[in-house]
Order: sequence, then C-alpha cells, then structure tokens
Amino acid sequence: MSLAGATQDEVRRHNLAALARFLHDHGSTSRSELVNHTGLNRSTVGGLIADLVAVGLVRETEPVGRGVGRPSYGVEPVRERAYVLAIDLRVDRAIVALVGFGGEVLGRREHRFRKGQQREERILAQLADVCRDLLAEAPRRAVQVGVGIGVPGLVRQPDGLVRFAPNLGWVDVPLADHLRDELQVTTPVVVGNDSDLGAIAERLRGSAMGAANVVYLSGQVGVGGGIVIDGALLKGAQGYGGEVGHMRVNPQGRECRCGATGCWETEIGEPAVRAATGASDTESVASIVARAEAGDARARQGLEEVGGWIAIGVANLVHIFNPDVLVFGGALREVLPLVRQQVEDVLTGSLPAPGEHVILAAPALGDDSTLLGAAEAAFAPLLDDPVGAVAPSSKGRRPAVTA
Amino acid sequence: MSLAGATQDEVRRHNLAALARFLHDHGSTSRSELVNHTGLNRSTVGGLIADLVAVGLVRETEPVGRGVGRPSYGVEPVRERAYVLAIDLRVDRAIVALVGFGGEVLGRREHRFRKGQQREERILAQLADVCRDLLAEAPRRAVQVGVGIGVPGLVRQPDGLVRFAPNLGWVDVPLADHLRDELQVTTPVVVGNDSDLGAIAERLRGSAMGAANVVYLSGQVGVGGGIVIDGALLKGAQGYGGEVGHMRVNPQGRECRCGATGCWETEIGEPAVRAATGASDTESVASIVARAEAGDARARQGLEEVGGWIAIGVANLVHIFNPDVLVFGGALREVLPLVRQQVEDVLTGSLPAPGEHVILAAPALGDDSTLLGAAEAAFAPLLDDPVGAVAPSSKGRRPAVTA
Repeated sequence: MSLAGATQDEVRRHNLAALARFLHDHGSTSRSELVNHTGLNRSTVGGLIADLVAVGLVRETEPVGRGVGRPSYGVEPVRERAYVLAIDLRVDRAIVALVGFGGEVLGRREHRFRKGQQREERILAQLADVCRDLLAEAPRRAVQVGVGIGVPGLVRQPDGLVRFAPNLGWVDVPLADHLRDELQVTTPVVVGNDSDLGAIAERLRGSAMGAANVVYLSGQVGVGGGIVIDGALLKGAQGYGGEVGHMRVNPQGRECRCGATGCWETEIGEPAVRAATGASDTESVASIVARAEAGDARARQGLEEVGGWIAIGVANLVHIFNPDVLVFGGALREVLPLVRQQVEDVLTGSLPAPGEHVILAAPALGDDSTLLGAAEAAFAPLLDDPVGAVAPSSKGRRPAVTA
Repeated sequence: MSLAGATQDEVRRHNLAALARFLHDHGSTSRSELVNHTGLNRSTVGGLIADLVAVGLVRETEPVGRGVGRPSYGVEPVRERAYVLAIDLRVDRAIVALVGFGGEVLGRREHRFRKGQQREERILAQLADVCRDLLAEAPRRAVQVGVGIGVPGLVRQPDGLVRFAPNLGWVDVPLADHLRDELQVTTPVVVGNDSDLGAIAERLRGSAMGAANVVYLSGQVGVGGGIVIDGALLKGAQGYGGEVGHMRVNPQGRECRCGATGCWETEIGEPAVRAATGASDTESVASIVARAEAGDARARQGLEEVGGWIAIGVANLVHIFNPDVLVFGGALREVLPLVRQQVEDVLTGSLPAPGEHVILAAPALGDDSTLLGAAEAAFAPLLDDPVGAVAPSSKGRRPAVTA
C-alpha cells in the first residue's frame, strides 16, 4: 500500500489493520514479533496495541520467551469481543458457526434439510431459524462484524446473487439480500463460492499455508474448485471462474444438472461414489471408505472406478495450473488415501514436469474449510478497520465498550 | 512501482522506461499524450524525450492534432535503431523475424525442416543458419537488444531449458544456451512457451487488447494455452502452467505423445484434422477448410467431428477461467468460422453464466502471434532501461552511436 500523501489518521488505521490481521492469523504473539513483522518501532507498536486493548480486541499476556534483553510482553486476540456468523450451505445441510476474532469457533450447529424441503424458500427459512438460534448464544459484549456464507454455485459479486447452483436447483437467488432481511443484520453479508472460501481457509490456516499456487477441490454432491494463482484467487471476468466440476471428462457419461453430459462431478461426486459402490442414498462417503478398507469388494471396486475419474481430472488441473498443492476437500478427503496411488500413476504417465512437484493433500481443516473461509470473508471489515468496526462512535482512543 | 528512497538516476530511468514502453506499444504519439499518460509535467517529458532522441531511439515529427493551444509536436519510435531476433519454432518449421523498436517486422524468413531432420541437433543447426542469414540484413547502426524464441513445450525459467516438447521429441534441451553459442550473441536469450507468447502479443496488439482475462489457444500439431488472469500470465509453481492440450477429454481416444490417452490435442491438433477429413499428410488446415467451404462432404463432416471436440475443450476452459476473450490461435483460427456455432451451442447447453460473456475471437495478428510475442519477450531489457540498452557506455546524454 502506498501511503504517500496519507493523513496521520490514515496511516494509523493502516497500521492498526496490519496488527489486527497478524493477530487474527497467528494468534498469541509477542510485541517483538509485531515489531519485526510491521517494521514499526517499539513505541509505535506499543501505542497501536494500547488502542486495540482500549477497544477490547486485544489483551496483554505474560512475557513470552526468555531472551537476553528486556522481557517482551505477549498480546493475544480477544475472541469474545468480535465475531462473525459463518455458514457453509450444502445441498443436504447447512453448517453454521460463530467464529471469534482470531479464528476460533465459539459455537456451531449442523442442520440437515428435510427431504422434499429443499426449495429455495424452505431452505432459507430453515437456515434463518438455525442462525437465529445460534446467534442467541453470542458472547455478551461481543460485536457482530459480518456474515459470510459459502454456496455450491456461481455467485455474482459484489451483490451476492447466486446466479446458478445446479445441485440446489437455484437460479438467480439474491441470497445476500434474503439473509440480510431474515436475520435483520446491518453488518455486511458476503456470499462466496464454497470452493473459493475453502481455498482461502486452507491457505491461511490449513494444508496450503503459505503456498502461492493452490487448487482446492470441494467434493460434495457437486465438485467445485477454488484456485489460487500467485497468491490471488482466480475469479475470472465476471467472478464465475473455477468451475472444474463441469470439465467434461466422459463423453459416454451421465447427464449433469448443468445441462451437459459427462461432467467431472457426475463421475466423482457423492452420488457417483454411492452408485459405483452399491451404497444406499444415505450412506456417507466415510462409511463407504470404511467398508472398502475392511475388505468389502464392491466398495473397493467402486472406489477404484471413481478413483480413475478422480485421477484424470486431477491430472488435467495439474497440467493447467501447475499448483504447489492440490487439496482434496469435502468428501474427496475421505477417498484420498485409497485413490492416491491411482492419481500419482496417472500423473507419472503423462506430461512429467508439473506432476513432479505437486503435493496432494487432505484439508488440514477437515470438513470445515468452507465454513472457516466464510468466516474469513466476513472478517474483512474488522481487519480493514479494527477500531472502527467494534467502536464506530469513537475516534479510536479509550472508547466506552458499548456492545 | 514505489519510488520511495529512489535516487534521481533511478527515477529518471524509471520515467525513461515508461516513455519507451508507451512509444513501443502505441507507436507515433504526441507530447501531450505522453504528458497525460505519465502524469509528469511538460518540461520533464521534454527532457526525457531529448534523452531518447539523443540515443537515436525516438525522433520528433510534425505537430499532431489541431488543438486550441500550442501545437504539440509528435514523437515516434525509430524502428531501425534497436531490434530483436524473434523465433517461432514449430514442429515442422521455424519462422524467424527481425522486429524493430515499436514492434514492426523489419525482415523475416520461414524455413521448413526437412523430413527426417527433426532431431535436436539438426533442427538447431538449421535454425542457426536461418538466423545468421537474416541477421546479416539487420539495419546498420542498429543495436540488437535480445533474442526471443517460442517453443511448443514446457520451458523452465529463468534458464530457458526446454523440459519437454513431446511433438518435437525433446526432453531437457538447453535451448537458450545452444542458441547463445550458435549465434554468438551476448544479449539475453529468452525462451518461452509458444502459447504464452501468443497470449502476450494478442493482448498487447491483437484481439485481446486491454482484456484482463484471456485464454489464447495455440493449435498446431499440438495444442497449448496461454492464459492471462487479471492481467498476469498464468505460470504456475514451476512455470509449467497452461498445458490445456493435455486435458483428457476422450477416454476412448488416441494415444498422445505425452504418454496419456485421449488428450485434447489428439482430437483437435493438425494430425487429427487431417485424419478426420481424409487429407494427405501435407495438406494444410487452411486448404481443408477451403475444401469444406466449397462443399466437400468428407471435409465438412470431418471438421464437424473435430468441432465437437473443440467445443468440449473450449467449454471446459470457459468454465474454469471465465475469460473475457478466448483466442483461437494457430491453425485453430482457420476452423473457427466453421465450428463457432458448435462451440456456442455447447456453451449455451451447460453452465450459463460464464458462456454468456466470452468473446470467441480469431487472432488479429494472424499466424504471427507467437512470433511477435517472442519479440516482446526479447524487448524487455530495452524497455526496462532504454538508454542503457542502446548506449551502455554513456550515462544517457548524447552518447556516440557506436553500433
């Protein structure tokens, strides 16, 4: 950020934002680390910390480390001071969480949609109920700074219109507006593609930490891709990029909800895994994998078949993106151990160079990548202006804690 | 670029570079435009122009426009003052050009490799002969500032090692080193992927001018992709990104030179077009298209079959990248008019949003996209330090013209 011509207030806000970002991402840390990270001097950092302490976002802790010089006091984010509502909306369920400053989950609910109740209005009503129920548990004195929601579909920015979510059967649903009305919130509501949010979270706190080039696959009913290139999320011209589930890999394949035939998601999504392994409509992928590992021939054979399709699509993406890390998110994480060898064989049997380097990883955040990515998206206003976000009426010095 | 703490010399070099870049990209222009573009004042711009005139890179022209104020003198790049050697190396031929400052082609040669003489040493020897022959025609007083070469394969940066060029049969060929030795040049030799260079040129001077998100397809024997995302070339972790020709689209397809089966390039590359249309080994795609347009049933039917595969791969790329423009480069530009409807139908029949916006375009630079992109890559040293590149011994004021 160029600060040429910036006023003193702008510089201070910029520095407060840098400190808040670091504490949110890294948790408890020492003053010395903050001095090193920001490049500011000790007394400036001390003043900034005092500002964040004054609004209750940060607390000081016992000295950290035992260096030769002065002891360096620790600082840590106060998770109960500011939180976001994060939602991972799936085809069969919603997972909802309150996530505190610093990234910790303060509370969560999982709600399965009733069969036959998956129409837009019914889903929105059920979702709103779960959210209201959870919001009642928010810590007292805490400020809600935003709402983030991940959906399996194409989302228009910045208004959060869901253009098309084939597996939900949604077309042009103004999800951000609906949620704002239902929940009566005044803070920003951010809607993102589930895979994009998964990629953000895994890169910030998970298996792809620090990697510049990442492909995150979100495999549920459908399959999506969150793609990071040279540190930036692939959006495309209108924000619809990353729809890797609609690569057509099998001209003899099944019809896809998108209208085409043989899309990757019709070969590797949850319904395809169930069909290939003779599972019931409700058996989870984890349970099918457990059967295969216990020696069930039908499950083994079916997963090998699906594994062949997984390998083809993964190889395509490795050749197109040459990523450092490819994360098998959602239900794909369950099958990774069983299909890893198949994927590696296909990578070895084609263009060699990009396949030599890629790390095939399970998501370190388990099933929560999208949920935590939605939280990160919702935290943006706080991380941009930490004092303003929790104490908007103050100028940032010793405000009364009003929430 | 942040210039905080920069010395006066650094600032001047930065400003000279900005001016040279603008003149190279836009050609003849007025002082007023340069003032507007750079944000510098009139007298500073006048001084910078004087520096570029002094080293012979720029000449002043008659007043441009008829505004109400003072007449604004024009300036234009002197194409004979500095040039690069640009090479488009293909499987069956090489196209070689001298390209002057400002982007104009000063001379060119096309050399077809003799059958059975395609081994690495033979190709390099023939290529060096053609280059030497052409270099003898370089304008007197002109400075050669670099060599750029595009190859159909994976190129390691920054050393220009060709890791794998399946259709040439090359593995780990140190092409930059070989060319430097053969041509006895001391200027930088830049090796790039043919499609990446095509994308650069089409974005700078062609069909994708000004577009932020571009997919450039280079279709010859093989098929490659040069992909621009938010203004930056997709490189990937090791620089091997963009290998869209090795998307596997047809599990029942042909064996590919990469080792896999059913890669996109085996269905839409030149050999596939010839096979589908019953053409001889030497008939060009342009001639096959002409036959189809004249009503030859075999040619029409074959191109329709290939068109189906083109459509599938293009739809995949549109869903993955959501580009503003997708350029059909190389031999694909010949078939675009015939297959455009098929591609549009497939885009309409799947995920709607990304396909609504994309422009399917022929390359404005015709068959020269890669060649001119190679020239652009070779111009980098000049555009970075224009005075130093043509008059290295001077400090930039009135140097003797020594070349």
